[in-house]
Amino acid sequence: MPQGQPLVVPDDGRTTRQRRHQPLLMVHTGDGKGKSTAAFGLALRAWNQGWSVGVFQFVKSAKWRIGEQHALETLGELHRRDGVGGAVEWHKMGSGWSWTRRVGDETDHAAEAAEGWAEIRRRLDAQAHDLYVLDEFTYPLNWGWVDVDEVVRTLADRPGRQHVVVTGRQADPRLVAAADLVTEMTKVKHPMDAGRKGQRGIEW
Amino acid sequence: MPQGQPLVVPDDGRTTRQRRHQPLLMVHTGDGKGKSTAAFGLALRAWNQGWSVGVFQFVKSAKWRIGEQHALETLGELHRRDGVGGAVEWHKMGSGWSWTRRVGDETDHAAEAAEGWAEIRRRLDAQAHDLYVLDEFTYPLNWGWVDVDEVVRTLADRPGRQHVVVTGRQADPRLVAAADLVTEMTKVKHPMDAGRKGQRGIEW
Repeated sequence: MPQGQPLVVPDDGRTTRQRRHQPLLMVHTGDGKGKSTAAFGLALRAWNQGWSVGVFQFVKSAKWRIGEQHALETLGELHRRDGVGGAVEWHKMGSGWSWTRRVGDETDHAAEAAEGWAEIRRRLDAQAHDLYVLDEFTYPLNWGWVDVDEVVRTLADRPGRQHVVVTGRQADPRLVAAADLVTEMTKVKHPMDAGRKGQRGIEW
Repeated sequence: MPQGQPLVVPDDGRTTRQRRHQPLLMVHTGDGKGKSTAAFGLALRAWNQGWSVGVFQFVKSAKWRIGEQHALETLGELHRRDGVGGAVEWHKMGSGWSWTRRVGDETDHAAEAAEGWAEIRRRLDAQAHDLYVLDEFTYPLNWGWVDVDEVVRTLADRPGRQHVVVTGRQADPRLVAAADLVTEMTKVKHPMDAGRKGQRGIEW
């Protein structure tokens, strides 16, 4: 609850206002649904604040999240055209990152993931965005394609007021330790358990 | 994973396609963050499908979710103006529901909540929307302002293909039992624990 009183007031020499405005590292993990969906909900709030939003999807299938992508890009287009809300950039690994401009060896996902992270690091250095959605980023970390310690260090040292949300199952303990806000989404019940597959509009 | 194989194929005489297209009752519960945010992420997908989205916020403060509201209403306006995406209606209890047209005794939250549910029931009967977001609806249920059994019965009997997502802590076991998909959001770590209050763009 935003209006609530903090349980602990840290002895860090900062005022409540200063603490309030610290940029957040958020992690949505667990086996349940809603990890990415909640991250894109955060992107809605960011857009409304006029923030620049950068989405980086570390997944192989271009099919995923197409609904959110189209809706958020539509909002980004409104920003470009009418100046309302914030800018939205959506990048996905699926068929080579857009900035790599290569036809690409699409089978080398490890190299693609490393390229994705390298670009994010450059943008963090340049303070390119106000909110970064690193969607399904836990997987390249867990598979050793991107070094967790380097990511944690880079995020800890990021300049300015850049919020970052990382989604994906089995978030590395070092990432959890570094995060300000960690939510675990747990499956209580899923239609798949009753033999029902995903459907359009709900799953994508 | 939408492309995955169901663990169980039920003996219900339906084809996979028929089961796939059954409307879902979804519940986002638990003490963690992301319950509402993920529901509004679902609304993005629904908008992209051209679905009519009805949001009903059972909260008292008009401050909440203003970012999502503005972003989704902007998308709804695009639908009205350019015919892209779906329609979006956003109703909130905070200052009396828009359809009640009364100056209102704003202190009688129980009556307001009951009015909200009565309108949702009318709309379900009329198949007014494709996706209903009943935000923070667990609270009026838990406080006895709206009858859980009646809600579960109405939702079970709803006609057509209307998806419903209910958010809020401590979802009633009867609602959980009736739902197709239940996700629990659990707090692993929150900035409040470190004495940091909510901030604009992140919490609202």
